Amino acid sequence: MKRRLLLVSNSTLYGGGYLDHCQQEIKQFFGDHVKKILFVPYALKDRDTYASTARKKFTSLGYELDSVHEAADPVEAVKRAEGIFIGGGNTFRLLKTLYDHKLVSEIQRRVLVDGVPYMGSSAGTNVSTISIHTTNDMPIVYPPSLDAIGLVPFNINPHYVDPDPNSRHMGETREQRILQFHEEPDTPHVLGLREGSMLLVEGHKATLLGSTNARLFPRGEAATEFTPGSDLSFLLTD
Amino acid sequence: MKRRLLLVSNSTLYGGGYLDHCQQEIKQFFGDHVKKILFVPYALKDRDTYASTARKKFTSLGYELDSVHEAADPVEAVKRAEGIFIGGGNTFRLLKTLYDHKLVSEIQRRVLVDGVPYMGSSAGTNVSTISIHTTNDMPIVYPPSLDAIGLVPFNINPHYVDPDPNSRHMGETREQRILQFHEEPDTPHVLGLREGSMLLVEGHKATLLGSTNARLFPRGEAATEFTPGSDLSFLLTD
Repeated sequence: MKRRLLLVSNSTLYGGGYLDHCQQEIKQFFGDHVKKILFVPYALKDRDTYASTARKKFTSLGYELDSVHEAADPVEAVKRAEGIFIGGGNTFRLLKTLYDHKLVSEIQRRVLVDGVPYMGSSAGTNVSTISIHTTNDMPIVYPPSLDAIGLVPFNINPHYVDPDPNSRHMGETREQRILQFHEEPDTPHVLGLREGSMLLVEGHKATLLGSTNARLFPRGEAATEFTPGSDLSFLLTD
Repeated sequence: MKRRLLLVSNSTLYGGGYLDHCQQEIKQFFGDHVKKILFVPYALKDRDTYASTARKKFTSLGYELDSVHEAADPVEAVKRAEGIFIGGGNTFRLLKTLYDHKLVSEIQRRVLVDGVPYMGSSAGTNVSTISIHTTNDMPIVYPPSLDAIGLVPFNINPHYVDPDPNSRHMGETREQRILQFHEEPDTPHVLGLREGSMLLVEGHKATLLGSTNARLFPRGEAATEFTPGSDLSFLLTD
């Protein structure tokens, strides 16, 4: 299993710039042998601006960046990619567009079979998992399925946030929403990645990185907290 | 057009009990000629407990309450209903179950053709509109469509909430999410109902009720605020 993934909760951390909080991890992840990243900007409407933002950041880290929306044939672009980065935005729009361009199975093949390193942030992290059933986003479009690329056999909730004890808002807390998901049959584990945290997956090994704890919601069991550096490889065996 | 709707943002307002904040409006809405309400508890997993909570409240207001989940034939129960109340919970689960039981078109017919009064709260308000594209809920299940009962030709965002200026959380604000919806083609108006507000629809007349302002997001125009008592009938003509 050649799988290599860097799954980031959020693109921008409060007080910092775009991908600033994970730039060391990005450099370590893509390393020196990857020269050019294929960027997927489908989660935002303005793809040109988004690609420009991503290109600026990756150039500063020493990588070239192509955006898949500029490719004549997106499937062909994925087939030739050395490394893939799917950025955040609206998860429904992102997944629908991946299906529209027939990229879901092709990205899966490149990452799981060919070992192409995959980085996701926010919505790009959601679509890397088994499904987008635990996205926070508004369903602004209707994808043909909520099944996603399936690079890991569990779900992630990015931007995981604890209840605000001072809030008078009566909408469900994030934890309540995830527990509602687990009321449905045969749900996978859900890893709540707080802003500032990320998951590094290398083959059958998963490690929590970043500056914040993650909260795991196993099906039918109490939630548990994990500190940065924790080995979460057990999530990969289900 | 016999349509009569009471579309409530939230079932429970901070500091109060279940439906306390709208009980005067409920009594006025169903009046004296409706004796028995048909309750739809599909948005929550534990339907028995939910029906019991709703029954207690409606009994205290002078109405009997049957829950559709106790009916041998849900379509038949809708055909015979004097008044309908769909409660809150998870909007995806609610809409999927309405489709599973073939209730979407039957409820639409009863309300629009037969003039059966319809009350919705939170998820029950979402499904009364043209679609659930502007729900806040997590997509814990996959309905066959996001098109909803279509009792009004616009969308509602219940539990509408303003940005918290002290937040360090970098997820999209509610306004940003609704504006992302309007980036898609041919979206309808979106009425953001803050907790405490509700919309009364009588035929071609729509009036904002409750204790808080509502925020309207027309397609391609700036958002505008409306105070309780405002005539929003123009939303019904699109």
